[in-house]
Amino acid sequence: MNLNFASDNTGPVAPAIMDAILAANTGAAMPYGNDPWMPGVRDALRTLFDWPEAEVLLVATGTGANALALAGLVNPWDAVLCHRIAHIEEDECGAPEFFTGGAKLVLVDGADGRIDADALAAQIGRTGVSLHNVQKGALSLTNVTEAGTLYTLDQLRDLTTMARNGGFATHLDGARFANACAALACSAADMVRGFDMVSFGGTKNGCMAVEAIVIRDPARHREMELRRKRGAQLWSKHRYLSVQMMAYLADDLWLKNARASNAASARLATGLRDLGAMMEWEPQANMIFARLPRATHDRALNKADYYLMDEADDAAGGPLCRLVCDFTKTNAEVDALLTLFAG
Amino acid sequence: MNLNFASDNTGPVAPAIMDAILAANTGAAMPYGNDPWMPGVRDALRTLFDWPEAEVLLVATGTGANALALAGLVNPWDAVLCHRIAHIEEDECGAPEFFTGGAKLVLVDGADGRIDADALAAQIGRTGVSLHNVQKGALSLTNVTEAGTLYTLDQLRDLTTMARNGGFATHLDGARFANACAALACSAADMVRGFDMVSFGGTKNGCMAVEAIVIRDPARHREMELRRKRGAQLWSKHRYLSVQMMAYLADDLWLKNARASNAASARLATGLRDLGAMMEWEPQANMIFARLPRATHDRALNKADYYLMDEADDAAGGPLCRLVCDFTKTNAEVDALLTLFAG
Amino acid sequence: MNLNFASDNTGPVAPAIMDAILAANTGAAMPYGNDPWMPGVRDALRTLFDWPEAEVLLVATGTGANALALAGLVNPWDAVLCHRIAHIEEDECGAPEFFTGGAKLVLVDGADGRIDADALAAQIGRTGVSLHNVQKGALSLTNVTEAGTLYTLDQLRDLTTMARNGGFATHLDGARFANACAALACSAADMVRGFDMVSFGGTKNGCMAVEAIVIRDPARHREMELRRKRGAQLWSKHRYLSVQMMAYLADDLWLKNARASNAASARLATGLRDLGAMMEWEPQANMIFARLPRATHDRALNKADYYLMDEADDAAGGPLCRLVCDFTKTNAEVDALLTLFAG
Amino acid sequence: MNLNFASDNTGPVAPAIMDAILAANTGAAMPYGNDPWMPGVRDALRTLFDWPEAEVLLVATGTGANALALAGLVNPWDAVLCHRIAHIEEDECGAPEFFTGGAKLVLVDGADGRIDADALAAQIGRTGVSLHNVQKGALSLTNVTEAGTLYTLDQLRDLTTMARNGGFATHLDGARFANACAALACSAADMVRGFDMVSFGGTKNGCMAVEAIVIRDPARHREMELRRKRGAQLWSKHRYLSVQMMAYLADDLWLKNARASNAASARLATGLRDLGAMMEWEPQANMIFARLPRATHDRALNKADYYLMDEADDAAGGPLCRLVCDFTKTNAEVDALLTLFAG
Repeated sequence: MNLNFASDNTGPVAPAIMDAILAANTGAAMPYGNDPWMPGVRDALRTLFDWPEAEVLLVATGTGANALALAGLVNPWDAVLCHRIAHIEEDECGAPEFFTGGAKLVLVDGADGRIDADALAAQIGRTGVSLHNVQKGALSLTNVTEAGTLYTLDQLRDLTTMARNGGFATHLDGARFANACAALACSAADMVRGFDMVSFGGTKNGCMAVEAIVIRDPARHREMELRRKRGAQLWSKHRYLSVQMMAYLADDLWLKNARASNAASARLATGLRDLGAMMEWEPQANMIFARLPRATHDRALNKADYYLMDEADDAAGGPLCRLVCDFTKTNAEVDALLTLFAG
Repeated sequence: MNLNFASDNTGPVAPAIMDAILAANTGAAMPYGNDPWMPGVRDALRTLFDWPEAEVLLVATGTGANALALAGLVNPWDAVLCHRIAHIEEDECGAPEFFTGGAKLVLVDGADGRIDADALAAQIGRTGVSLHNVQKGALSLTNVTEAGTLYTLDQLRDLTTMARNGGFATHLDGARFANACAALACSAADMVRGFDMVSFGGTKNGCMAVEAIVIRDPARHREMELRRKRGAQLWSKHRYLSVQMMAYLADDLWLKNARASNAASARLATGLRDLGAMMEWEPQANMIFARLPRATHDRALNKADYYLMDEADDAAGGPLCRLVCDFTKTNAEVDALLTLFAG
Repeated sequence: MNLNFASDNTGPVAPAIMDAILAANTGAAMPYGNDPWMPGVRDALRTLFDWPEAEVLLVATGTGANALALAGLVNPWDAVLCHRIAHIEEDECGAPEFFTGGAKLVLVDGADGRIDADALAAQIGRTGVSLHNVQKGALSLTNVTEAGTLYTLDQLRDLTTMARNGGFATHLDGARFANACAALACSAADMVRGFDMVSFGGTKNGCMAVEAIVIRDPARHREMELRRKRGAQLWSKHRYLSVQMMAYLADDLWLKNARASNAASARLATGLRDLGAMMEWEPQANMIFARLPRATHDRALNKADYYLMDEADDAAGGPLCRLVCDFTKTNAEVDALLTLFAG
Repeated sequence: MNLNFASDNTGPVAPAIMDAILAANTGAAMPYGNDPWMPGVRDALRTLFDWPEAEVLLVATGTGANALALAGLVNPWDAVLCHRIAHIEEDECGAPEFFTGGAKLVLVDGADGRIDADALAAQIGRTGVSLHNVQKGALSLTNVTEAGTLYTLDQLRDLTTMARNGGFATHLDGARFANACAALACSAADMVRGFDMVSFGGTKNGCMAVEAIVIRDPARHREMELRRKRGAQLWSKHRYLSVQMMAYLADDLWLKNARASNAASARLATGLRDLGAMMEWEPQANMIFARLPRATHDRALNKADYYLMDEADDAAGGPLCRLVCDFTKTNAEVDALLTLFAG
């Protein structure tokens, strides 16, 4: 058994999605988004988000979705407000700066991976006060956060309202959108209420490679299409993006997969606590950041995959590890890892 | 029967490649190019090109391969010399300018889609003569050309030698590399001899979405990896790129597919000539640019797909049409189209 | 006597302008365009252009004025149409590409340095036809052209009307605006009628270093201010830009200087013709492109400064030389050069 | 009497520098840095810095000098480490991001405007650990800091050594280089010992508009020349930059002016303390950040110019004000301001 808890991108493609790819693999289809499946994808996301005029662009990477969305919302001389540990700040090698033409990511603090409302208010007040500064651009939130925690719907509403009133557009990095919906037991429409653009993730939750950029205001659509093409993100054989997303949205597959990964993660967290692990942040979806006792960690060396974030000794709390469950994780796999840790 | 001759990107994925995707769809695999298939892809291309130290990056779009390769070869203040109808000039919405940070595509003339040696020599002499001009950057050639014609190996050698002696790097846009190899009956190693980087295409010739950037000098590798990530072209579930390319290279599938599409195109060209079509350029691979008699063209309206490039009346030569055969085109399909045209 | 006819940027600052700099050199003045002279500069240019709502930004270089103006008019994925020998294409080391974020300069042909109306119409029709191409951006004209010739007011009207009707903004590179006005005996308002932004030159015609970007639509002003600051073109001690431009506009100094340089150039052209020179293009303002007999050219070697554009032998027409007169050129200097040439 | 303490860029040009401009204003001089004064400028800075092979580029703005220097030192995917209140972060509207092609300014903390050594070590360790992050680029220090404090030579040595050992290049923002040298009573060569490029300021200390980019490694020179031209910072009538810098360096004018402004600032600081002002940071050169009693501040309303940084009431420490002395400030002016404050 391959105990791989390194990320939710190490798993395979869900069977229903692979079936859809196979089913589409016959005959000719017009390229570049003009395939017969794409209108259905757009309509499904309009309904899901309750954004009746939204437009949708599909791309293959989450970094592409985030960077293009931000480029569509801000000028090169604007600020993008985000959390210090946001994926767009830490894990995209400067793609947002590249696609926006050099906008500045301005970091806002807050405990547990969430932007603090007071810190946001203060930063909004400091931004764009003269032409010597970068100007008011966009707020980007991530839910599930990069700490594995959640914003509540109230928190999303408060932060996005504050941003909009302060002259900022709003972007949701939804790489784990489905996991957040599942954990909050809310609708997708509830989740996106305060946002202008959403990166709606598929790849981490059962797709091969597809993310939807959902654009609330259709007036932004043409520019976004040009940015996608110029950004080398427009597929010629686009049908294979469309059908992935179509299958992902059908029969609530997106939600079912997320529930499965969240449940596996909850089972793993309970087991880790029983083994003496200390949670760095409260795991609320499918990611666990835990300090394991040294001996526990050592038992899994070369036998299981997960990320070691900080090599600290036990006096400093023990090694900080990230363990992620994707939709394929079974109770048996979780228990096998726990058994390995228990020694 | 769906008579789609619009492009070689309207067809499906070749069975062997889809099989490889399916076979890889089990268990966990490390992401971002660290999957177990990628070293084999690299080794296969090293052997194919006879570039023993080459490095390989996979991306999903041809525009991405071209734009990243050029960005790795030139400075933002440099010139990229290319033919007036090159894909990088006409069909990428400025992606090369975006990825290079604003390099200038300098157009060189030549008949039949091929850069003329004298025109190239003249342009090399005019480029970078003072700090007020853009500087010597790269020459980018396309084979098969965008006119459906071919450079011979001698022509490639002459032009790349001239470029290198003049202080330019060399790039091959090989979106239809396989079709060129098949038509010239040469090896891949012969084709790439004069180049520093090659965009080796897969998507148009049976893959779902994969292009290889092949980098002759391994010293350029790390920068190219960073550019790919920052350019939002690095897949997390990278195994699905690796196995496409692996299957494409296995058992000469790349070459067999190209031979099939070239043969279909030759049959179609013969048939079109019999119907009175005038070839705009001599079709040498799998693309035909033909002026059809008006009545011939009209018979296919809404019954077959191909591109109308220029709506000219018969006095001006008749409508200029582009017809492309991909690897799936059967004699039956070609003949059905010809029958439709014949009326 | 220093016989320098290399350019109109090799000369000194006009006395009235230096006097204005000296007069302003006392006490404190608020920085960054908030000095007390700047409102007067803006008002003077509003009146001169008959653009009652125009806004004005001052910068120190012509390349800065052109590149910022174009960046304010086009998107990164747009085309800038210009003549093949435009300064923005040939002499700015890619600054327009840099400041626009990678827009594409699309070259339009035409005799004698002027864009041909039919060629422009054709290019407008070919631009932005799909999202694979670069899109409709701006037309940039230069008057005096880089060939030393002039567009008539009718030609300017026709070309700018065609551009606007075709969905393009319009920019005038007016590095030698004053020389064109003087030669055409037209008003500045006549000259700018069809344009959205003008680079109004000062440096080549008696100033030390100042160019005005004149922005017809005040809605573009704030963005342009931000672009200037971000582009590192905003002076802290801005008063020294303001007073240069103020003095340049006062008492028609700009026009008087231009008349002087045009007159000197006309005298020089007559003299050169008498010596057997062949004019490459008809000199209409203060620049002469002439093929000199070899012996004539050789007599001036190391004794006078002008640019040798093309080292051709007499069979090919003789060496092509560029000779430019600035506002300081006296009859004595012109005659001294002619005497030198005559031997 | 105009009591302007808003900045050291509100004052006039020093007489010796204006004299040099006037003296150069005769006859022709070759443009674009080919004037006869420029070699002397380069040699003077080589000697001053004890960098025998250094190359020098002159530009008109401090933002231009900083942004170009950083662009020459880092890749677009690199980090520029700087203090949270650095001018490049707070006051240049994103020019460093623009000129570098989107590098990321990573903020390092430290009291009193100085980067803390431990914070720098931690950040160096966190930067560029994988290809998902931005990579090791440059450290940029400012002396005099934006808080009006100084780094000692030991502190500069420690921080630059740490950066270089960690794989970072080093840049000094020397907008107030002269004030720092004067206050530390050190040589320019001592100041620059640990740096790769220096923005050597002239404008704030008596020049009209000139800053030198001093490049230690001549191998970087050609690229920097191209970046300056492409960045629209290359003057045609360059002699007027050269002679400013020449006069500034002659007879230690740069140092004398700095001593004058530092002395005026010290006198002002003493007087403010006597009036009950609390220093936010210890003023060590020519900038004072002081919390004034409310009544004191109110007395100067509309009668003197300085920046109100934070409108706090007395309970919160009183309004925070920035007062800057330039080289022209006399004892009489300082005392007049103090008298105004005293009421």
